[in-house]
Amino acid sequence: MSGLQPGWLEHRASVLPGHTAAVFGSTRVTYAELHRRAAALGSALVYGGIRPGDRVALLAANSLEFIESVHAVPRAGAILVPLNSRLATDELEWQLRDSGARALLCHQPTWAAATKAASAAGIPALPLPLKRESPAAALRDSFVLDDVHSIIYTSGTTGRPKGAMLTFGNFWASAAASAFNLGLDPNDRWLACMPLFHVGGLSILLRSVIYGTTAVIHPAFDEAGVNRALREDGVSIVSVVSTMLQRMLDADALPYPESVRVVMVGGGPVPKPLLERALDRGLPVVQTYGLTEAASQVATITPSEAVAHLGSAGKPLITTAVRINAPEGEPGEILVAGPTITSGYWNNPEATAGALIDGWLHTGDIGRIDSEGYLYVLDRRDDLIVSGGENVYPAEVESAILAYPGIRAAAVVGLADQEWGQLVAAAIVAEPGADVAGLQSFLRERLAGFKVPRIIHEFPELPVTANGKVLRRTVRESLEGTGAAPIQ
Amino acid sequence: MSGLQPGWLEHRASVLPGHTAAVFGSTRVTYAELHRRAAALGSALVYGGIRPGDRVALLAANSLEFIESVHAVPRAGAILVPLNSRLATDELEWQLRDSGARALLCHQPTWAAATKAASAAGIPALPLPLKRESPAAALRDSFVLDDVHSIIYTSGTTGRPKGAMLTFGNFWASAAASAFNLGLDPNDRWLACMPLFHVGGLSILLRSVIYGTTAVIHPAFDEAGVNRALREDGVSIVSVVSTMLQRMLDADALPYPESVRVVMVGGGPVPKPLLERALDRGLPVVQTYGLTEAASQVATITPSEAVAHLGSAGKPLITTAVRINAPEGEPGEILVAGPTITSGYWNNPEATAGALIDGWLHTGDIGRIDSEGYLYVLDRRDDLIVSGGENVYPAEVESAILAYPGIRAAAVVGLADQEWGQLVAAAIVAEPGADVAGLQSFLRERLAGFKVPRIIHEFPELPVTANGKVLRRTVRESLEGTGAAPIQ
Repeated sequence: MSGLQPGWLEHRASVLPGHTAAVFGSTRVTYAELHRRAAALGSALVYGGIRPGDRVALLAANSLEFIESVHAVPRAGAILVPLNSRLATDELEWQLRDSGARALLCHQPTWAAATKAASAAGIPALPLPLKRESPAAALRDSFVLDDVHSIIYTSGTTGRPKGAMLTFGNFWASAAASAFNLGLDPNDRWLACMPLFHVGGLSILLRSVIYGTTAVIHPAFDEAGVNRALREDGVSIVSVVSTMLQRMLDADALPYPESVRVVMVGGGPVPKPLLERALDRGLPVVQTYGLTEAASQVATITPSEAVAHLGSAGKPLITTAVRINAPEGEPGEILVAGPTITSGYWNNPEATAGALIDGWLHTGDIGRIDSEGYLYVLDRRDDLIVSGGENVYPAEVESAILAYPGIRAAAVVGLADQEWGQLVAAAIVAEPGADVAGLQSFLRERLAGFKVPRIIHEFPELPVTANGKVLRRTVRESLEGTGAAPIQ
Repeated sequence: MSGLQPGWLEHRASVLPGHTAAVFGSTRVTYAELHRRAAALGSALVYGGIRPGDRVALLAANSLEFIESVHAVPRAGAILVPLNSRLATDELEWQLRDSGARALLCHQPTWAAATKAASAAGIPALPLPLKRESPAAALRDSFVLDDVHSIIYTSGTTGRPKGAMLTFGNFWASAAASAFNLGLDPNDRWLACMPLFHVGGLSILLRSVIYGTTAVIHPAFDEAGVNRALREDGVSIVSVVSTMLQRMLDADALPYPESVRVVMVGGGPVPKPLLERALDRGLPVVQTYGLTEAASQVATITPSEAVAHLGSAGKPLITTAVRINAPEGEPGEILVAGPTITSGYWNNPEATAGALIDGWLHTGDIGRIDSEGYLYVLDRRDDLIVSGGENVYPAEVESAILAYPGIRAAAVVGLADQEWGQLVAAAIVAEPGADVAGLQSFLRERLAGFKVPRIIHEFPELPVTANGKVLRRTVRESLEGTGAAPIQ
């Protein structure tokens, strides 16, 4: 019993039954209705054999069904495993097997991919919305903070994705720390226009229920739609990345209303001209540095600070300790600690032991902290590529390339790109006489589309360090020097 | 390291150095300044021999020195024991001894009482403000949620006070749950006009630092002063009891501004006419049921619900589970659970085992929950008397009366009183020929003034149950029947 708390959605359905919990397109759902729908789905899961501690995967685009599942799975006592709907079948199958998922919930648009992956993993795929109601089952209506809520897969630099376990306590601390930074208006509406299966989207859903506010969900990012939501639908907070902010400002020349109180921008610093344009038009940009393993936000910087500390991600949230693994003032690996931090990787004690040392998460990101305490993120996980808001880990793409006949070496890097932030590019070394024309279509079958290099260039050899490690920086310069145009 | 968090005041001094942390009279203190002052006092404590885990008691009226001490003691790694400045020397000495306090911090106005109590307990009394600065000591700048922050004494029905241990986590969960109920405006100013040594006042101080908002402190309740603060000083939230609300409304006929967003009323339900008057004048009354062992609020009811559910304390906060130890719908003891609940009583495993059973705190209060989930508090701890916002436990007063020569029996009850809520009254049985004229002055030396009965009436015998327990209800009726006037 110690540490036990009432379920968040159960609480909200009790105290704010008629308040809007979520808006998706023209549909709005109250807390009472969301609670009823989650209970129905939770009962179906229990009726279908799901038991406490089981993992239940979810493959769904942004939808009300996604939101229901997020609350239904814990009510059945199970752990949610949200899957990236852009992954290839092989990748989905691997995550289903690694998490030991007992079932895969899937929504109509992802039905074909889901049945394929589920059948490969030997588990049932359950279509949403449910066709018929099950008898009401006994559902969990309380939890302890240390219970695992979700497992979210995040690719490592060294190959296979790792399932970061995020507890109820991680999401709770993150919601509290964010509110104690941004304030909390009971009429807030937080817009998620990025995928809900990422920690950024999922945490908007949970935060809104914890606060008793409204989550507004868009099927995907659409600049005109976001602008309309900010101006007409009472959206007060929106989470985007820098390129999305740019597109919103480019879409028209109208100002934004005062009701927009926070534009949360993740995925890297906002360039000064863009920041100033946004402020001019009435968008209060709060830049943030976050990661899956920290249940989203780690540090934020407000508009007033951002101009004086350009490029900084600001200061840590109230719950979070940040330090740099290097002498004071010098760059080094960013370490974070506190109650928002994952308790470890599912089924992967080795990765957990490597990442969590004395309670400090070793992020792999490189940064420095200035004398006033502002954090600057210099390089994300060494060589992580962020393309259109999606993380691409070079090592994963390289190992796929190396599986192609006749490839001797490969190095994958990100090239600066105005539209996508970064573009995935590969430098390869082929055996004499090898035919590399089929490489791209080979990769398309094995990797999510956003991971497939848009630029592939052949070199006689790759630059390496004394101990044989590829010099990615030199590779990047070489690729930029080739002037190669992206493959359409 | 697991569960470690940065210090709240350290965080605020870093991210909001120039924001007003506290206002007392004409003095305002920024977060940077409060941090500096708390560090100076913390250093003095360390320099004076205070070690991690030590208890440091505090005897001070509402003041900036009180606020500094609340932050300085934990920085020295010690546990704060705030003492009720209205207690008699014997009572103070007992709490100093029971807590094993290593030192007693005291503010100028309480200096005489403090030196007397400290010397009786054989520990040093340290006067505030500090006369000179100590060399800077190494101070704690992080904590884990399970660390004990304060020990707050609360009188039991069975005699000696018990020291409820409240952890950082209890205050943290309480602050979060309250914000997720009331919302949180970064410009909030929460007025404390009741003693800071009670959980209600102390939790306003900690909540404000956690939120990064401003605590406005009055030396004592003064209706004109509170009205002025609400109208001129930007106070947005104020905590009072019902009689204070009445006095505020009686003091003048002016309306209140919209910036007053919450008037939190504790200590029992607000009568309907008073509630309606307050709403008419623009005071949004949020009634609450709380207790020391729950770090303040347990349940609240908003104005819109209060009219339809008159007399109810509302629904539990998001972190808190409440149940009634009786068949559904019937009255019984109120049990509460969740992360705001005390981990137990200091140095009193017996009281802890009696109160905390399977994680549920047995409050001793009687209540019922209706079919819609609204809590009604019917009787507080059987026979607890609440007089002018202070708790008076009959058993404690009775045992003091019984120490007077010639007293055979005593029963102490509360009589309804328009001004104070309840008036302390005693029924006594004296030996034939005993002289009870000196009883009141005898009690004044041994008890805090608010505990000394204002009405004392002699009876030939007291009504008792079959097993010899005094029937308090009958005693109350008899005392009301005597028409005895309060002793001035």
